Amino acid sequence: MSDVVVGLDPGSRCTGVGVIREDSGQLELVYTGTIRPQAKDPLPERLGYIFSRTRDILEEFRPENAAIEDVFTAYNASSALKLGQARGAVVVACVSRSIPVHSYEPTMVKNSLVGEGRAGKDQVAFMVGQLLGKKPDWPRDSSDALAVAITYLNQKRFARLKAGRK
Amino acid sequence: MSDVVVGLDPGSRCTGVGVIREDSGQLELVYTGTIRPQAKDPLPERLGYIFSRTRDILEEFRPENAAIEDVFTAYNASSALKLGQARGAVVVACVSRSIPVHSYEPTMVKNSLVGEGRAGKDQVAFMVGQLLGKKPDWPRDSSDALAVAITYLNQKRFARLKAGRK
Repeated sequence: MSDVVVGLDPGSRCTGVGVIREDSGQLELVYTGTIRPQAKDPLPERLGYIFSRTRDILEEFRPENAAIEDVFTAYNASSALKLGQARGAVVVACVSRSIPVHSYEPTMVKNSLVGEGRAGKDQVAFMVGQLLGKKPDWPRDSSDALAVAITYLNQKRFARLKAGRK
Repeated sequence: MSDVVVGLDPGSRCTGVGVIREDSGQLELVYTGTIRPQAKDPLPERLGYIFSRTRDILEEFRPENAAIEDVFTAYNASSALKLGQARGAVVVACVSRSIPVHSYEPTMVKNSLVGEGRAGKDQVAFMVGQLLGKKPDWPRDSSDALAVAITYLNQKRFARLKAGRK
C-alpha cells in the first residue's frame, strides 16, 4: 500500500515543498521545490500566491496527508507574525482540499531523521538525501520540507509497529 | 456610487467581521458577526473553519474591498504565531476571491475614528456606534472589525478630497 505525503516548510519569502511516496517501507522522492512570491509584492498578494501555488501542487501530486513543522518561539513577534501568516496560508490550502495536516516539533523532526533532537541542519539534510537515495542538491527550505514529510512517514510506521501490524 | 467594504479582526479563537456600505458619505451597517471555531478542534481545523466562513461571508455580501488591522508587536512570539496564522487564513480567503486587502496600523484606526492615535477601545466602540447610528451592542471583535472598515472608507474619502474630486 503506497502513501503519498507532502511536507511543507512555510515562510513569507520562501516556502519549501517536498512530496514523498512510501511503498512497503521504500521512500521515493516525487517532487521537491520552493514557492517564492515576488519580494516586491505586498504581503496579502504574497500570501495569496503561496496559497494558490500550494493548492496547485496538492492538485498535481494528490498527497493524502500533509506534514508541517511546528514553531513556537525563537522568533521575535514581528517575524513570528509573518511566519504565522505564511503558515496559515499553507495550512488552509491543505484543509480546503480535505488533506489532514500533521504538525511536528522541530526536535521531533531531528530525532526522527538523525536520532538526536539537537542535530544540525546539515545533518538533517544529509539524512534526507541518504533516505531518498539522492544527492541532496536541493535548497535548504526544500530539505526541511522533505524532513518533516519523512517524519510523518516514520511516525506512521512506528504507530503501525506499536499496534502489532506491519 | 456605493461602496461595500468588509472589516476583519482575525484571531484564532474569535474573528470579528463587519460589512459596511457607504453611499454618498452615508454609512450603513450591512452585517456584523464573529467567526468562532470549536475551541477543542486542532489548529489546522480551526484555521480551515475561519477560511471557509470568511469565504462564505464574502460570497454573501460581495464586498469590493477588505480592511484588516496591521499588528506588529505587543505579542509574544507564541501568540503572534497563532494570530499570524488566523490572519493568513483570513487574508487568503479575500485574495482567493480577488478582493484587495488594505492594512491599517492600530494608531491609524484610532486616529481615523476618534482623532486620537492612543484612544481606548471603548472610545472606538462608541464612535463606531455613533457613525453607524446604532447602539453598539455587538462584541468587541465585531466592533474592531467595523472600526477598520470605517477607516478604509475614511481613507478613501480623504484621498478623493485630496484629489480634488468629491
